Amino acid sequence: MAVATDRQLETLAINTIRTLSIDAVQAANSGHPGLPLGAAAMGYVIFQDFLKHNPRNPHWFDRDRFVLSAGHGSALIYSLLHLTGYDLPIEEIKAFRQLESKTPGHPEARHTPGIEVTTGPLGQGFANGLGLAMAEAHLAARYNQPGHEIIDHYTYAIVSDGDVMEGVAMEAASLAGHLKLGKMIYLYDQNQITLAGSANVSFSEDVPKRFEAMGWHVQSIDGLDPDAVRAAIEAAQAVTDQPSLICCHTVIGFGSPAKANSFSSHGSPLGPDEVIATKRNLGWPSEEPFFLPDEAVTHFRDAIGKGSRLEADWNDRFTTYAAAFPELAVELQLAIEGKLPRGWDSDLASWQPGDKPVATRKASEAVIQSFFEKVPSLFGGSADLNPSTNSVMKGAGDFEAPGSKPDFVQGAVGGEWGYGGRNIHWGIREHAMGSAANGIAAHGGLIPYTATFHVFSDYMRPAVRLAALTGYKTIFIFTHDSIAVGEDGPTHEPVEQTMSLRLIPNLSVIRPADGNETAAAWKRAVEREGPTALILSRQDLPILDQSDAQGDASKGGYLLADGSDITLIASGSEVSLAVEARAKLAERGISARVVSLPSWDIFEAQEPAYREAVLGPAGAPRVTIEAGVTLGWERYAGANGVSIGVDRYGASGPGKLVLETYGFTAENVVNTALALLS
Amino acid sequence: MAVATDRQLETLAINTIRTLSIDAVQAANSGHPGLPLGAAAMGYVIFQDFLKHNPRNPHWFDRDRFVLSAGHGSALIYSLLHLTGYDLPIEEIKAFRQLESKTPGHPEARHTPGIEVTTGPLGQGFANGLGLAMAEAHLAARYNQPGHEIIDHYTYAIVSDGDVMEGVAMEAASLAGHLKLGKMIYLYDQNQITLAGSANVSFSEDVPKRFEAMGWHVQSIDGLDPDAVRAAIEAAQAVTDQPSLICCHTVIGFGSPAKANSFSSHGSPLGPDEVIATKRNLGWPSEEPFFLPDEAVTHFRDAIGKGSRLEADWNDRFTTYAAAFPELAVELQLAIEGKLPRGWDSDLASWQPGDKPVATRKASEAVIQSFFEKVPSLFGGSADLNPSTNSVMKGAGDFEAPGSKPDFVQGAVGGEWGYGGRNIHWGIREHAMGSAANGIAAHGGLIPYTATFHVFSDYMRPAVRLAALTGYKTIFIFTHDSIAVGEDGPTHEPVEQTMSLRLIPNLSVIRPADGNETAAAWKRAVEREGPTALILSRQDLPILDQSDAQGDASKGGYLLADGSDITLIASGSEVSLAVEARAKLAERGISARVVSLPSWDIFEAQEPAYREAVLGPAGAPRVTIEAGVTLGWERYAGANGVSIGVDRYGASGPGKLVLETYGFTAENVVNTALALLS
Repeated sequence: MAVATDRQLETLAINTIRTLSIDAVQAANSGHPGLPLGAAAMGYVIFQDFLKHNPRNPHWFDRDRFVLSAGHGSALIYSLLHLTGYDLPIEEIKAFRQLESKTPGHPEARHTPGIEVTTGPLGQGFANGLGLAMAEAHLAARYNQPGHEIIDHYTYAIVSDGDVMEGVAMEAASLAGHLKLGKMIYLYDQNQITLAGSANVSFSEDVPKRFEAMGWHVQSIDGLDPDAVRAAIEAAQAVTDQPSLICCHTVIGFGSPAKANSFSSHGSPLGPDEVIATKRNLGWPSEEPFFLPDEAVTHFRDAIGKGSRLEADWNDRFTTYAAAFPELAVELQLAIEGKLPRGWDSDLASWQPGDKPVATRKASEAVIQSFFEKVPSLFGGSADLNPSTNSVMKGAGDFEAPGSKPDFVQGAVGGEWGYGGRNIHWGIREHAMGSAANGIAAHGGLIPYTATFHVFSDYMRPAVRLAALTGYKTIFIFTHDSIAVGEDGPTHEPVEQTMSLRLIPNLSVIRPADGNETAAAWKRAVEREGPTALILSRQDLPILDQSDAQGDASKGGYLLADGSDITLIASGSEVSLAVEARAKLAERGISARVVSLPSWDIFEAQEPAYREAVLGPAGAPRVTIEAGVTLGWERYAGANGVSIGVDRYGASGPGKLVLETYGFTAENVVNTALALLS
Repeated sequence: MAVATDRQLETLAINTIRTLSIDAVQAANSGHPGLPLGAAAMGYVIFQDFLKHNPRNPHWFDRDRFVLSAGHGSALIYSLLHLTGYDLPIEEIKAFRQLESKTPGHPEARHTPGIEVTTGPLGQGFANGLGLAMAEAHLAARYNQPGHEIIDHYTYAIVSDGDVMEGVAMEAASLAGHLKLGKMIYLYDQNQITLAGSANVSFSEDVPKRFEAMGWHVQSIDGLDPDAVRAAIEAAQAVTDQPSLICCHTVIGFGSPAKANSFSSHGSPLGPDEVIATKRNLGWPSEEPFFLPDEAVTHFRDAIGKGSRLEADWNDRFTTYAAAFPELAVELQLAIEGKLPRGWDSDLASWQPGDKPVATRKASEAVIQSFFEKVPSLFGGSADLNPSTNSVMKGAGDFEAPGSKPDFVQGAVGGEWGYGGRNIHWGIREHAMGSAANGIAAHGGLIPYTATFHVFSDYMRPAVRLAALTGYKTIFIFTHDSIAVGEDGPTHEPVEQTMSLRLIPNLSVIRPADGNETAAAWKRAVEREGPTALILSRQDLPILDQSDAQGDASKGGYLLADGSDITLIASGSEVSLAVEARAKLAERGISARVVSLPSWDIFEAQEPAYREAVLGPAGAPRVTIEAGVTLGWERYAGANGVSIGVDRYGASGPGKLVLETYGFTAENVVNTALALLS
């Protein structure tokens, strides 16, 4: 088959994406053919004409990032990755949605080469892209020098109706507009069809106007026309102080005679007959599944040579940069490799027994101050709770659009006001905060953190889960961690949140008991390859005397004080209560052991012998104490144990009174222990 | 003190709200004085000039609903409720934020007379209000008759910057505009200050334009000027086919010489000196805390007489209506009282052993069809997953704006297309779906339900929690309940979700094992005073043979099959696996008991003797089986038990293969049992 013109080749290439995608879906007999059929031209133009990438090195740092937020259309991205020469052979496409394949139902970062972020849960990719673009803007501001644009790349995304409807995406859109991130270019596959029907059964807003109101540059085009897509992306690139939304009018299931423009092509395979009918309708030269025209493949594979040249050129430029700015280059290189500067933790804040009690949120603030200058990759902030979550890097500047100025300066934390600022003002947008932080982590070169009240971890739970599923190194700070919150009342008092985070596989959850455990928690979080949740108190907590401790907080649990009659196991603010109860029990001649258990997941990764030594013999009497639900504590209470906890909602009142009312007094612990022993 | 003019009286009344609120905050030495100071005029005009309410009967059904979405400003609503004559005496205002008071830190419905919905977690009230307005529109369409407008009330809300930034509120705004709910009138307290600084540190969008894009009628006014507020509400009422947003420019902390227009008045008391300075600045006649001018109180208390007359008039009109439309009136009266029609459950779908296996999501659909016509108050739908969640009431119509027409009819489910339709198309907005459903439940007269994939319960978790905290009767359907989801992969496979819902106090969680357990689950959900989560399978499950069962699913757990050597405890799809394993164990001469445990919370409410009889002796060998995290199952596994579960993420592949790979085979259960016994 000869290809006479570029136009013919282009059409052939776009149809190659289409047919490969529907064949993959059909082979799996599962998946979403509609999006790849409709958005193939968009994907083609992005990958072929704009995306700066090297298929042979998906980790090249200055590549453009591409996000398929509409992750259900995964066949599209897998087709593009295969065709442009990533290490995703045709066998993997044929094994679409099969066990052990590199082509799972929804794209998973760190599983498939070329997948930047894990998508599928709608809206997540949209907000991840915000984080990718924030990371680029920040690193560019920090490291680029006149004549040395070593960080300079775009974030492209394909988003769907579903993405645009999700709250997390709206939060992200609002913040992206505020931050004037001109290198975010999102193509909205506006096909008007959702899984359950036509989108306007539930969605009739003026999307372009809404995005304009949020500060975006908006265009509307025919998304089936590659020239229109090309022109629109060029226009989007020309607007440097606004993120861009390109509303691409497409037809879901394009090319399918029977199922185009119908929700029936959204979530189900076309069926073997309709696959053939679609191929015929598209003028496809073969009915053979997975047929790939050589011309098309050769055309797509141009990306390999081009990408290699681009990366080589960048490497040269980086060498020049490194010669001119050796310190910056070393720092950046270390960050790119995800390594920490030697001695970063040499002066972590620490406390001595007898020091003034300190809330772990405030201890956390002191710990942050003690290392953030040594870890330049740390980059984060709170969801409008700086004064409460104590999560600021003082003097490290505010991450804001250059030239923007707030009406008031209370939000500012000193230092630069611009993309080089390290303190992020996320706004009252917990969900987008979590998802965008994941995007920052996915970008690389930065360690993002977020902060909000613990009870609002619920608002960002989907993002926390995806961090854990993917293994993003995102640090989630959750303060105000129990009914001790007090006056704000039950709506603001976490009860089930700590345990519910412990349920999330691969999330490290740490609830430190004092300042020193907080420092250990931060050390672990900064060093771990994966996400960590730090659960911090609002109220002051005494500094524990660890002089008799066996083990330490870095092991997730340790024996704080030995004894022989009963074991008191506690986490966080309840450890000092256990210590107090131990002293009172001693007055009655009872010898209690106290175990501090800041992190179940870390503790459970220790050797059995260590764990047994800490917990004491199975079947021995134990009292667990945590100001949260007791469900789950059976694990440590054991057969002859009892758990003191909170199995109902909190109450509004002074925190100390609330704690007393709910049984968090040394007296109640003592009485519980006595009852158990008798 | 003589009050010469209405204008003076009005100012006095508004300042009464202000001073009472700041006194309450100061007495508690905790709270948010800034919002009540800035929004007092808005609250005054709503309550005094517009709100149709009877302070002596907060439950009068046709009252207007008022929502303080900015729940941190609770002192404002408590002041208004006290002043207009609700059963909230001054002692309660003085006990603001104290234990046992009726004035907790954030407003709690069913705790304080006059509080319609629980607010504080930002954005929730905004979305609750959508539900309140949906309920009004639906009941009006169902029950009003020409000349008989017995359901006819507004939903007013005061919302803040934080509300407007939250994704849940944006989802709700989008749906409200789509539904053209003209009786939603929201006053946006646009004070430009958030807790951490000036709002434009993180928020610079054009809010009026954004709401216009979402189909709202938008005005911008001086929110400190009662005449402007009055005129704007009148204009909003005149627009009957759009929800209204009134952007009220105010000054946070208005009147405070030192702290007005500053974030320092947002979340902290003014301090005793500044309270006095504020009173002086406002020309307040007394420095005595909680001083209430008689003229102002008398003026506010007009609401009592007016409200009584309004309700009496409505009662008369209802009597006339009941005479003209006795059947409708009886039906509505029953719904208002929250009662179910006699015999509503007399023909619930049921299955026999040997019937074709059925997925519990499909069984749920059959159960819904078998009773929805008898329970006219049932009102719900899915987040764009009708074809997958099987949650439609067939032929009961689509809840949509009258006169609107979708491009395609796939979304429609037959019957009326208008406010009288009972099937809600929530769109891809899980969070707003949950929160608005709570609003519907709070309205009364309707039993709302929602539906989405189980993994996306995370997206709506804050709403689920508030339903449980408040006791809203909201039914949450979560389908596709385990790794058996299969091809969609780990992003769509719940692992920790079932257990994490069990952690939420007062949420009833039911994971039925077959069709009949699904019917029992629905019966419980419809009859319970409080929220229920129904966890349903994607895959087909055999109908259990209950002929030898002791107890039944209505007790949360029961002995499905007796035995003597070991107990197999399972929920949902794993119960039939346990039955299969029991047969295989019998072949080896081992007699196993099988316990089906669809609901932990229901089971734990049974008498100890029943529970012991079901579970068997403590310390006896037990195997628990659930395709989810094992953390928590120690409760039932006991000291000598073992749990089969999923403590990592799922995988993409055919569901049956995924289950096998993860150990959900009869063989693995048998081997686990044998290992335990040996």
